[in-house]
Amino acid sequence: MDRKKVAILGASGYTGSELIRFLSPHPDVEITHLTAEKHAGKLISDVFPHLTGLLNLELQPLSTKSIPNNIDVVFAALPHGTSAEVIKELYARDIKIIDLGADFRISNKNYKKWYGPHPCPELIKKAVYGITELNRDKVKKAKLVANPGCYPTSAILGLAPMLKNKIADASSIIVDSKSGVTGAGRSPSLDYHFSEVNEGVKAYKVGEHRHMPEIEEALSNYSGLKVNVSFTPHLIPMDRGILSTIYVKLKKKITTGKLIELYEKHYENERFVRISGEKAYPSTNQVRGSNYCDIGMRVNTENNTAVIVSVIDNLVKGASGQAVQNMNVMLGFDEALGIDTTPVFP
Amino acid sequence: MDRKKVAILGASGYTGSELIRFLSPHPDVEITHLTAEKHAGKLISDVFPHLTGLLNLELQPLSTKSIPNNIDVVFAALPHGTSAEVIKELYARDIKIIDLGADFRISNKNYKKWYGPHPCPELIKKAVYGITELNRDKVKKAKLVANPGCYPTSAILGLAPMLKNKIADASSIIVDSKSGVTGAGRSPSLDYHFSEVNEGVKAYKVGEHRHMPEIEEALSNYSGLKVNVSFTPHLIPMDRGILSTIYVKLKKKITTGKLIELYEKHYENERFVRISGEKAYPSTNQVRGSNYCDIGMRVNTENNTAVIVSVIDNLVKGASGQAVQNMNVMLGFDEALGIDTTPVFP
Amino acid sequence: MDRKKVAILGASGYTGSELIRFLSPHPDVEITHLTAEKHAGKLISDVFPHLTGLLNLELQPLSTKSIPNNIDVVFAALPHGTSAEVIKELYARDIKIIDLGADFRISNKNYKKWYGPHPCPELIKKAVYGITELNRDKVKKAKLVANPGCYPTSAILGLAPMLKNKIADASSIIVDSKSGVTGAGRSPSLDYHFSEVNEGVKAYKVGEHRHMPEIEEALSNYSGLKVNVSFTPHLIPMDRGILSTIYVKLKKKITTGKLIELYEKHYENERFVRISGEKAYPSTNQVRGSNYCDIGMRVNTENNTAVIVSVIDNLVKGASGQAVQNMNVMLGFDEALGIDTTPVFP
Amino acid sequence: MDRKKVAILGASGYTGSELIRFLSPHPDVEITHLTAEKHAGKLISDVFPHLTGLLNLELQPLSTKSIPNNIDVVFAALPHGTSAEVIKELYARDIKIIDLGADFRISNKNYKKWYGPHPCPELIKKAVYGITELNRDKVKKAKLVANPGCYPTSAILGLAPMLKNKIADASSIIVDSKSGVTGAGRSPSLDYHFSEVNEGVKAYKVGEHRHMPEIEEALSNYSGLKVNVSFTPHLIPMDRGILSTIYVKLKKKITTGKLIELYEKHYENERFVRISGEKAYPSTNQVRGSNYCDIGMRVNTENNTAVIVSVIDNLVKGASGQAVQNMNVMLGFDEALGIDTTPVFP
Repeated sequence: MDRKKVAILGASGYTGSELIRFLSPHPDVEITHLTAEKHAGKLISDVFPHLTGLLNLELQPLSTKSIPNNIDVVFAALPHGTSAEVIKELYARDIKIIDLGADFRISNKNYKKWYGPHPCPELIKKAVYGITELNRDKVKKAKLVANPGCYPTSAILGLAPMLKNKIADASSIIVDSKSGVTGAGRSPSLDYHFSEVNEGVKAYKVGEHRHMPEIEEALSNYSGLKVNVSFTPHLIPMDRGILSTIYVKLKKKITTGKLIELYEKHYENERFVRISGEKAYPSTNQVRGSNYCDIGMRVNTENNTAVIVSVIDNLVKGASGQAVQNMNVMLGFDEALGIDTTPVFP
Repeated sequence: MDRKKVAILGASGYTGSELIRFLSPHPDVEITHLTAEKHAGKLISDVFPHLTGLLNLELQPLSTKSIPNNIDVVFAALPHGTSAEVIKELYARDIKIIDLGADFRISNKNYKKWYGPHPCPELIKKAVYGITELNRDKVKKAKLVANPGCYPTSAILGLAPMLKNKIADASSIIVDSKSGVTGAGRSPSLDYHFSEVNEGVKAYKVGEHRHMPEIEEALSNYSGLKVNVSFTPHLIPMDRGILSTIYVKLKKKITTGKLIELYEKHYENERFVRISGEKAYPSTNQVRGSNYCDIGMRVNTENNTAVIVSVIDNLVKGASGQAVQNMNVMLGFDEALGIDTTPVFP
Repeated sequence: MDRKKVAILGASGYTGSELIRFLSPHPDVEITHLTAEKHAGKLISDVFPHLTGLLNLELQPLSTKSIPNNIDVVFAALPHGTSAEVIKELYARDIKIIDLGADFRISNKNYKKWYGPHPCPELIKKAVYGITELNRDKVKKAKLVANPGCYPTSAILGLAPMLKNKIADASSIIVDSKSGVTGAGRSPSLDYHFSEVNEGVKAYKVGEHRHMPEIEEALSNYSGLKVNVSFTPHLIPMDRGILSTIYVKLKKKITTGKLIELYEKHYENERFVRISGEKAYPSTNQVRGSNYCDIGMRVNTENNTAVIVSVIDNLVKGASGQAVQNMNVMLGFDEALGIDTTPVFP
Repeated sequence: MDRKKVAILGASGYTGSELIRFLSPHPDVEITHLTAEKHAGKLISDVFPHLTGLLNLELQPLSTKSIPNNIDVVFAALPHGTSAEVIKELYARDIKIIDLGADFRISNKNYKKWYGPHPCPELIKKAVYGITELNRDKVKKAKLVANPGCYPTSAILGLAPMLKNKIADASSIIVDSKSGVTGAGRSPSLDYHFSEVNEGVKAYKVGEHRHMPEIEEALSNYSGLKVNVSFTPHLIPMDRGILSTIYVKLKKKITTGKLIELYEKHYENERFVRISGEKAYPSTNQVRGSNYCDIGMRVNTENNTAVIVSVIDNLVKGASGQAVQNMNVMLGFDEALGIDTTPVFP
């Protein structure tokens, strides 16, 4: 079989380089086209010295026309808005697309409210929300996959079994998330300047982060319930990792042990979800560099609430790893190809 | 006026060295006695090289008998249990005591449940809980002050104005706290080994941390309400700082602006509490090394909930700084003496 | 006595905020004027939230004319080039000036080679190089002090006793320095973006850093020898601190113990230099936030070489602390006023 | 072909878990036996949660007798001394051994001087020093490979081309190394307690580190010169990575460009050594998690000295990665099997 040809748009960011990390050794695909507007003309290894000797490709300017006809799959890691414009044209050319941006993750109504007018609303309904474990069947047939945001991935996988089994009160969920700094991308700004971020923790966009409607929509669609979430993201002085601490009111009595069983059952065939035992709450450093989502939990029987702790690597399961997982599903490959790497600890 | 003579019991830990940082330049006191069981016979600068040339005292073994008769104030930074035994004897000798441990912070009933049998329960009622801003009048007259825990300090100051003004539902408060690693003390263990903690975030003792009953008791006593808290502490890869994100249901409608006004009014005469403006949530690094507690907040009017973000330096306002603040109050000094230092940023 | 009035030019950078930390509580001076070109019109606490409530001054645009006539001392923390232009005018107005920039640290010849043409070469000879411990007498009488660079301060204090006593071969000194990221200032760029710097060490400007001629000139002037230095700076993932490891060939036989004695004697009256005992090499975290320079050393008698380890806080002894020390000397104050703070460890 | 059976002795340390990371996905070997004295009876995933679901083996007590007869290769990651005792027995059983400890790296004479009496000196000469790039032919035929230390690997690869080509003065080499904290292993102690190490840099064992004779011996054997090294290790607040800055006097005139060419030629067939271009000095974070050694350099023609900057991941090329590389060579496999992973950046 010929290897599928892959293009990465926006290859000079962290999700771009992570796509290269997973796709370079992938046996059934071949990266043949990279774009990076600001760095066009440079080699990818000029922009990412760690890739020296691993991929000798020149960065191209972003232009849909210049994307070769033999490309089978496009990964778009572009700013929102730009992404939709580009994808519109590629969609017409019958190329499979995985969009790591936010343009096709939520309904047009919510998009308008949280981002502004959508550049091509007609495509929104064609897109499949690519939280692989929950939407696998749809991803299989998708031409356009909207790859989930990093915070949403951790929250959705942490909440899905509870909501599906109707044991949580969907109307008052609290998601308190802590993220490493790579989540903010690679563009320099005072907010992510080393000395400003290091040795400090802060909350930001309290109750106003655009990932909040994404979490609500995805979980509502999945569970059939009207899900309401209070979401607070925090910035943590580390490179990678998201930990979401989720507080839910329980509608049924259940012990921690039984809740763990329910989660284990829900994810029993899932390669990339691991459920921790009682009193063993996962740290982000046990999934670093890998596509795992590890989930621990505790029920407080006195007040019938549960605390769920869900961890991922924001650049992997929260971005490029899940994108490759979706590609594997779309192309009929083994779902773990290229991304079955062991976490890098410490 | 003669300077008051101070002893620090347990001087080889981080709270010990912070007490020295604040008390050495204090104009009205003099450190004359230090103990450290394991390091007895060494100079304090052997144990803390940063103190070289600043305090030339030898560490003594811990023994109440050997504490000189001319000591006016004792700071006890000892393991719980040990602390109570020692304090029992000192109390009889009419020395003013500030206990940085947990032995006199909560009622005998809760102590038994969370720690075990108390070594001298009769003293618990004599102790004043030293959250200075809320208990100043009692601290003034106290012989024995129980200095609050680090997490409780951030949570209590963050919640007090709301509960006092009866605008929060006291029965379902969530406190999600993030702490730097100094909070775990100076005893080596795998849990705080650099490579295990760095580049990771984790939750621990979910719903089981001993600071939970402390928060509940202190706030119940202060507000007259029955306060119930779900508390989840997290470990963050940094040295100092606690950020508590607090979620409350509101019983009355209020805007963010009005809530901020209410907090500003509540703390208007407080030197060490600063209220952030709208959308400006404090980072722990803006209080580092200082005795400040900075508080930001946001109301979500749609579902009538509020998020409060409260930050302190766990070793200062969360331990040694507040201890010195309490000493100043007990001895009738200006409350800020020795602790009016500017935060060290970055 | 009236308090002296102080202006800080370039107050929105880290050295600016550190000057404020030391000068605000200083009993004999008063900060009355702050400039910050980009942030003119804002309060200093808008730019540095940690200063909230501590100094209520508005940032002014940079213009020498607008600097009030009653100003006694100006601290200039400006980009090189700009600095010299401004200082030229202030010098004529008979204001005492401490320049934290590089414009007056080295000879016109070296300036031309390493920086380009000098804006007012005639002033270079008027300036005193403010390494306080070595140039105290000149600083006392100076109108214009060139405050040393951060790397040079650590290297010069580490080498001075050896060169003065003619026991080191001045012609082949190696200085290998490791700096925290605040040394790079507060302007965002990819090089100091959190995720690029964290969890990595790198060398930069190998043999080409502008602090190399500064070290050579200062030590040559001080010792009367022709000093040649190979200098390699490195960036370390931490906020503050410089550690310089210095390798010298010895011209005379000497033991480690004797060398330590020689250093102790050299600095015996110095408040801010501390010499470590045998086998006790200082860490940067034992001087953090303070004006100390701690120095440890070892002689290898087999090949007659010595290794000197010198640590400072780059923002304090390496910048703002030493600047205040120089001001104290210039104005006849106690040299430690405002800067006799205990290191903040951890 | 049957997969070779592998045992790892001392599997609960960081080099143990890294061996598992590389050997688990290795197509031609199978891990069938793990030991860990203190943790015997536990699953490997109890000790390393990141390995959950990846390797279901129980940790065995360390006993050579209990090592199954079908084991083909043993990796020993044991404390020195213990290692030699165990290896003595295994050697007699004709099992191929890769020792990650220090027992067989240096001559008996130096071992006695730096470590003490050797438990089985007769085996020292049978061992091959496994710096793969330089000793490949000997490794091929070896039964016992002494895997190099982390610091030595970075220094030796950085110096080999220069010494082989006789352009460096072998008698006065300075190696100034900076290491992440994983280099100190996984046993808790105050020296590696998070709050002691974080935000600080320090030198340790100046001129006394046991890796110094190892560097000298390996380079002397390789070059035929009598190599003398002054070695200073430093501890850096990060998990992984070693950067060695190496200072050499040149015996011949050469430009930076020509020196780079010489290094490129020397390593042209090496998969795991990458030479940086002029003025591009490598950061440790560009090799993180990978088996690469990246080398940059600069010649100062004025004083005819060169600075070499060599970076590795101390746990990979500096330990477990190189160990697997050696195993591949010993067993006749493709040298990169299992270890051709892309660096994990950031």
